[in-house]
Amino acid sequence: MQLERYAGKTVLALGAHPDDVELGIGGTLARLRRAGARVVLAVVSVPGDYAVRRREAERAADILGAELRVLIDAAGKRIEDFRHCDLVALVDREVKDLAPAALLSHGRAEFHHDHVMVHEAALAAQRLRYFDFFTYQPNFCRPVPVAFQARAFVDISETIETKMRAIEAHASQFSQRGIATDIFRDMSRLAGRLVGVQYAEGLDVGRLLL
Amino acid sequence: MQLERYAGKTVLALGAHPDDVELGIGGTLARLRRAGARVVLAVVSVPGDYAVRRREAERAADILGAELRVLIDAAGKRIEDFRHCDLVALVDREVKDLAPAALLSHGRAEFHHDHVMVHEAALAAQRLRYFDFFTYQPNFCRPVPVAFQARAFVDISETIETKMRAIEAHASQFSQRGIATDIFRDMSRLAGRLVGVQYAEGLDVGRLLL
Amino acid sequence: MQLERYAGKTVLALGAHPDDVELGIGGTLARLRRAGARVVLAVVSVPGDYAVRRREAERAADILGAELRVLIDAAGKRIEDFRHCDLVALVDREVKDLAPAALLSHGRAEFHHDHVMVHEAALAAQRLRYFDFFTYQPNFCRPVPVAFQARAFVDISETIETKMRAIEAHASQFSQRGIATDIFRDMSRLAGRLVGVQYAEGLDVGRLLL
Amino acid sequence: MQLERYAGKTVLALGAHPDDVELGIGGTLARLRRAGARVVLAVVSVPGDYAVRRREAERAADILGAELRVLIDAAGKRIEDFRHCDLVALVDREVKDLAPAALLSHGRAEFHHDHVMVHEAALAAQRLRYFDFFTYQPNFCRPVPVAFQARAFVDISETIETKMRAIEAHASQFSQRGIATDIFRDMSRLAGRLVGVQYAEGLDVGRLLL
Amino acid sequence: MQLERYAGKTVLALGAHPDDVELGIGGTLARLRRAGARVVLAVVSVPGDYAVRRREAERAADILGAELRVLIDAAGKRIEDFRHCDLVALVDREVKDLAPAALLSHGRAEFHHDHVMVHEAALAAQRLRYFDFFTYQPNFCRPVPVAFQARAFVDISETIETKMRAIEAHASQFSQRGIATDIFRDMSRLAGRLVGVQYAEGLDVGRLLL
Amino acid sequence: MQLERYAGKTVLALGAHPDDVELGIGGTLARLRRAGARVVLAVVSVPGDYAVRRREAERAADILGAELRVLIDAAGKRIEDFRHCDLVALVDREVKDLAPAALLSHGRAEFHHDHVMVHEAALAAQRLRYFDFFTYQPNFCRPVPVAFQARAFVDISETIETKMRAIEAHASQFSQRGIATDIFRDMSRLAGRLVGVQYAEGLDVGRLLL
Repeated sequence: MQLERYAGKTVLALGAHPDDVELGIGGTLARLRRAGARVVLAVVSVPGDYAVRRREAERAADILGAELRVLIDAAGKRIEDFRHCDLVALVDREVKDLAPAALLSHGRAEFHHDHVMVHEAALAAQRLRYFDFFTYQPNFCRPVPVAFQARAFVDISETIETKMRAIEAHASQFSQRGIATDIFRDMSRLAGRLVGVQYAEGLDVGRLLL
Repeated sequence: MQLERYAGKTVLALGAHPDDVELGIGGTLARLRRAGARVVLAVVSVPGDYAVRRREAERAADILGAELRVLIDAAGKRIEDFRHCDLVALVDREVKDLAPAALLSHGRAEFHHDHVMVHEAALAAQRLRYFDFFTYQPNFCRPVPVAFQARAFVDISETIETKMRAIEAHASQFSQRGIATDIFRDMSRLAGRLVGVQYAEGLDVGRLLL
Repeated sequence: MQLERYAGKTVLALGAHPDDVELGIGGTLARLRRAGARVVLAVVSVPGDYAVRRREAERAADILGAELRVLIDAAGKRIEDFRHCDLVALVDREVKDLAPAALLSHGRAEFHHDHVMVHEAALAAQRLRYFDFFTYQPNFCRPVPVAFQARAFVDISETIETKMRAIEAHASQFSQRGIATDIFRDMSRLAGRLVGVQYAEGLDVGRLLL
Repeated sequence: MQLERYAGKTVLALGAHPDDVELGIGGTLARLRRAGARVVLAVVSVPGDYAVRRREAERAADILGAELRVLIDAAGKRIEDFRHCDLVALVDREVKDLAPAALLSHGRAEFHHDHVMVHEAALAAQRLRYFDFFTYQPNFCRPVPVAFQARAFVDISETIETKMRAIEAHASQFSQRGIATDIFRDMSRLAGRLVGVQYAEGLDVGRLLL
Repeated sequence: MQLERYAGKTVLALGAHPDDVELGIGGTLARLRRAGARVVLAVVSVPGDYAVRRREAERAADILGAELRVLIDAAGKRIEDFRHCDLVALVDREVKDLAPAALLSHGRAEFHHDHVMVHEAALAAQRLRYFDFFTYQPNFCRPVPVAFQARAFVDISETIETKMRAIEAHASQFSQRGIATDIFRDMSRLAGRLVGVQYAEGLDVGRLLL
Repeated sequence: MQLERYAGKTVLALGAHPDDVELGIGGTLARLRRAGARVVLAVVSVPGDYAVRRREAERAADILGAELRVLIDAAGKRIEDFRHCDLVALVDREVKDLAPAALLSHGRAEFHHDHVMVHEAALAAQRLRYFDFFTYQPNFCRPVPVAFQARAFVDISETIETKMRAIEAHASQFSQRGIATDIFRDMSRLAGRLVGVQYAEGLDVGRLLL
């Protein structure tokens, strides 16, 4: 089980808004937790409906065994209200504080402006420390074609149900809007077929020390 | 239903070997047939087990309502035994004979040498006539990560079962080797989610007159 | 004539500023109008010389048979004065209101910041509805090398003169600055050669239900 | 006039078959000749109609002021009849013999198998000497969409007529088959618009010592 | 020596902040100066520690024989505090004032937000005049993997020491923070190996009139 | 030390000719050996000077602690003398025999025809088993610009001297032709700077189970 490389170390999962990380790498985070890693789930901002969505994020992080941090922890504040250099400073602060062995964040196939900004801030954080850097697949409540190429895969066969529960914790985004979440299970099953396991999540690799 | 543009016209589906076309665009061909197009399924060569695989190809073509043509119709002959210019001539001959309104073939994400050769011959055929040119997703008995980006989608909700039966007609490749085919159904369901239908096949667009 | 698929439906053409749409897809819009589509030409903002350029945009839309909408309809307001999420909201509003069968907008080869913003807002609108999504070639008063790959073509042989008149309606950008417009006719002739018609416009395909 | 850098030096223009070089860089070669360079036009093979096409190639080279070399100078021999290592040896021999200051050849957007082989042999020749390496746009008697991005441009305003005459010297490919050549003039005019001259040819840059 | 093409002409080197230009093309600028070009080193802004870093920039420009211009010449002002259109206007002003024969700037592999903005403003300036346009490799105090492909190379064997001194003039960024600069010498030696000289700098080519 | 994941397992390093593997991943193989992996160095063919180069390959494999296999073990036989399907069969046979946990081979930035063929055969082998798949940087006796992007890095600080000795074992390619090998040390030092170690080798990631 290769994720044991992160046992006793910290992994930082970074997402622009609540539910981004759960959709992209919920199963991976649960696996990392089981492998003995400290997992920090950093949400940059809660773009609206602050109280509800923050509570959902907390519940999802609990389900995954992750520590939640909300970097811009204030109602009514959006990522775009900050300059890019201030966003870089926010991410830098976490990287300096946590000294992560790996950082997982949005990738370059994103087009949601906030996601792109977070991706660029994560890229920039590479100048501070030599952590492994991965990016995850862009996700939407309703899926849209994107050019994402998975190169590294995490077997989440044991944690797929945990992932699904973490996603469903975001009831305001899915069940309460009548949006089904089974597509994320389907996507994990297909990714699993590429590496011979039941369920997997795919990652792109930015920088990895083998 | 947009495929009606091909009603009364000929569509040429080109694959290196038996089952390539069925895996990639079986549902599309069945849809085209229902829309009133003449569908020609051209297999370039039968790489081995000639009698069995040719019969499977015939049955699959029947299921899809397509006319089967085997371009190198001889046992023990492989695509690589031909020069590229001879392969181009084979494809050119079909294009001149059929005057297709659309050509669907292997795409540039392929790495199987025969598939790449067929892709290049299909590209070259564009110099002869102004048909629409599409490429389909690379497929393997056991899936492998490939960089394919679907841009155009065909709703195959009504023909998914026909597609699955056409695939299963290739018993020597799947059931007799204990390889399940349900992944192709899963892939169609996921593609369908990208355009709001139950099942779809994704195509890349080479040249299309709107 | 394939554009008949949009007969009786609405097509939304989106451009950052007056003349962007005319340069990229003026002939296509005129063709769509003739094919029976309702064509809405949405200009996001008028960056300067408000009265003159708005009037030019109106005249151009008239020539093309399109309904003009100016999304940020106020003098002295630039796209950059809005947050990205507000721009997304503006485009979302049109998509919800018009329920378009197709959306044509700026593409990813753009580098003018406003054009990039509009491109990303158009991409994001795909999460709301399942319209066909195309992007058009970046254009400049004085041409600059760009990496744009046309995959789909519209025969504008019948509407090339309409396109040219729509471009010339933007007198403040061309004739009054001594900038000739014949290059746009040349470009259409070359694109036409790729698909065997006299004049064509090339589009990239983001998402298309065949 | 920057091409003077090649005055008194040798430039090697490499094309798979007669007319490839003329279509791609005929104007550039004529310019190089006027600038005082020795220009060698190397055709790898004459794929058919040997006597006629070889004579056409000679006439075209004369028009451009270039020395013609036919690397596989035998009727009925195709590039594909040679192993790749033998083709590399053929190109290596010219590079060693001529010690060119620049090599211009087919590029990576080609899909004609012979053109791809010549492109790869030209790439490999870079290991022998430090010449400037450029590739030219793929061309067809009837144009086909290709992904070619010009980065460097040669002003051929003074040599466009020479280029057109060199193309027309290949009568068996154009006038005798009723194929017009004016599209090549149109393409040069459009390329010229990108750099502010009347006519230009566009090149991709592989390796250039500024 | 090809850089003589710029003798008696102006070359504009554009960087977001002090030291960007020195790291990317310090040796090239020193070479251009020796070749008789007027070299203007334009720094868009001094992001912090204004007095110190401005003085360092002046010293570095002196070492390279370049005229320093700081486009946003005010303490406490960042590039992000400006709208993109205002940044474009700043760059346009320099291009109109200097009428450069070449512009060298940040490229598209950058992800630092300010660098990306400057890259896009430089791209846009191409609409004003027909200068040669090059981009240089992204650089960081501590290196990070980037996708940059050099196509054109400048032999800086004679100016490598000048480059190193210009870099070291930015003491606040390197020696005072204990960051060694020898990696930039190593990178130049490796680039030199690609073109057969002792030291070189690699550039990507945006638009070049040969 | 992450390479311990391969302890007690087999790693297959595949190269077209003697010295390809040593240049690309010599230090990685020595590291893998120290980490307790069985390392098989498979050379597809010895293109010439059979006795000498085979002996050099044996010595190099000894230095790295790898088992040498020559897949086409006959003088005067080139990879091109085989059909692609036969080459695929050769690689398949090794993969079936060795059941490797990882396969390292040529990548898609190669243009040497034999290297491309081996790359494609290695890609195809992925359909047989779920090994990790990496590709290494193209290398030449005299370096040529290539588009290779390293994503994963192996710290070879402890094995750089072993790598250099393995390279020098190929005396017929380097010392006896007066070609220095220090550039490979320089390249490893630069790669090391990207991940904070003294020397590293960079790999692209095709498929990796984390």
